[in-house]
Amino acid sequence: MTFEQWTRLVLDRVETALEHYLPAASELPATLHDAMRYAVLGGGKRVRPLLCHAAGELTGATPEALDAASCALEMIHVYSLVHDDMPCMDDDDLRRGKPTVHVKYDEPTALLVGDALQSQAFITLTSDVPGLRDAASRQAALVRELALASGSIGMAGGQAIDLASVGRALSREELETMHRLKTGALLRAAVRMGAVAGETPSAETLRALDAYAAAVGLAFQVVDDILDVTADSATLGKTAGKDAKDGKPTYVSIIGLDASRVLAQQLRSDAHAALEPFGARAQRLAELADLVVNRVS
Amino acid sequence: MTFEQWTRLVLDRVETALEHYLPAASELPATLHDAMRYAVLGGGKRVRPLLCHAAGELTGATPEALDAASCALEMIHVYSLVHDDMPCMDDDDLRRGKPTVHVKYDEPTALLVGDALQSQAFITLTSDVPGLRDAASRQAALVRELALASGSIGMAGGQAIDLASVGRALSREELETMHRLKTGALLRAAVRMGAVAGETPSAETLRALDAYAAAVGLAFQVVDDILDVTADSATLGKTAGKDAKDGKPTYVSIIGLDASRVLAQQLRSDAHAALEPFGARAQRLAELADLVVNRVS
Repeated sequence: MTFEQWTRLVLDRVETALEHYLPAASELPATLHDAMRYAVLGGGKRVRPLLCHAAGELTGATPEALDAASCALEMIHVYSLVHDDMPCMDDDDLRRGKPTVHVKYDEPTALLVGDALQSQAFITLTSDVPGLRDAASRQAALVRELALASGSIGMAGGQAIDLASVGRALSREELETMHRLKTGALLRAAVRMGAVAGETPSAETLRALDAYAAAVGLAFQVVDDILDVTADSATLGKTAGKDAKDGKPTYVSIIGLDASRVLAQQLRSDAHAALEPFGARAQRLAELADLVVNRVS
Repeated sequence: MTFEQWTRLVLDRVETALEHYLPAASELPATLHDAMRYAVLGGGKRVRPLLCHAAGELTGATPEALDAASCALEMIHVYSLVHDDMPCMDDDDLRRGKPTVHVKYDEPTALLVGDALQSQAFITLTSDVPGLRDAASRQAALVRELALASGSIGMAGGQAIDLASVGRALSREELETMHRLKTGALLRAAVRMGAVAGETPSAETLRALDAYAAAVGLAFQVVDDILDVTADSATLGKTAGKDAKDGKPTYVSIIGLDASRVLAQQLRSDAHAALEPFGARAQRLAELADLVVNRVS
């Protein structure tokens, strides 16, 4: 199977699973459920689900368990986007090429959509599917990984640091700390949860995956910063040039565009190096590192 | 032990546990952690922790497991208050006698405090304490109870219905559906989680506890509506008369003050009746039903 065939397969599985794990729009309260589905379905690069499925190949996780973990990760990711786009935060109108939730619906609905998506992620992780059913220790471990990556010492904490940094000169080290929490923590969780969804991974396996995830997470952000200044809004599906306009510190603003490109390639090499112990079983993870660095949107 | 001694004991335990399960204010990001602690600590009636501890007496749950479940419940409850008080929702300045989080800090911080408290609840439920350690099936069951009660078919869904109802005449049935989700779901989870934290409860036990929780949950709301028109802001620790002012439908506005008082007493009797199968082991639950109905703030 080529990488393109594999990603298509995973993306199709995950989209079907998201349809399943999100409450039906016909179920009450209908507007809230409609808005949750609007926010999550039919868009996004699904990087976290791809990382999760790729890592699951190392520990023999069932596809159904990986689908559930992937959906939970994507619900957390989307909730953070919905809240981040709200007027009191980034105040953005466009996301994944569509009006943001507070524009399409209203602010209170956007707030509740984010809140309910976070709950739905934990409902999903404790659902009754092969590989999770009768494996409560796996469910509890997945919940803990996701909650730690989402909360105040993970994604939400990164956003708090981000807010405090606007209009202020950050050192490269401070910028890295912020991104390690804001986007890195959930990408790391995606990789770890893929492994945890199968046979309990060894400490060495988790250490190698952490090194991989750290490199890929940072590369993801460096490339985001590059694209913010080199791509247009239509390609990105979100407002281009926004970080520069908002006075947010980025890799490009701190080390320049050329050095950022060099850094992204270096991080790609680091990611590959971390995967060496796994041999051919880590092929998809290696290909995903390439995808993250070479993407154009 | 008198009821007052028992409640004091539980409240002290839970306050100590909340101190422990919330990240330290010295830990980065410091402002976020400071605001999370400000929102949660040193206030509130802690009704859900009391219900949780009382229900735990039916199934021999360890005090440590009940503390963790109680803290998770209170974190979810407080996150909902913090978001509910925000300008795009109820826009309230006073909560538990103190400035609300977005007033004391700012709106983005309030948004992140709520988000991070929800994550922290699930971190807490999967922590390493006697009664949960080596009992992953209990952890997974607790996570599922709490997530379902919090999400779109629980608390967040109730808030969505509440928002849609402002300025509109609701039938008593519609009002009950709204409250069953908005406040009832988490009160029910408090009771069920207390039981689930011990030896796996039978289906009959859970059915009886559901009947008890349904009566107490509704009584709680009826009394809230009574207090909104009969108590002052200083006693309530939140803005009195707010629901009437906002044109929100309440029991008092639909069936009147006297009928609301009769209803509250009827629900108290229903709660006691539901506990009959448990005998003396349900003493604290019975006393809590009285507390909910007879409270003055």
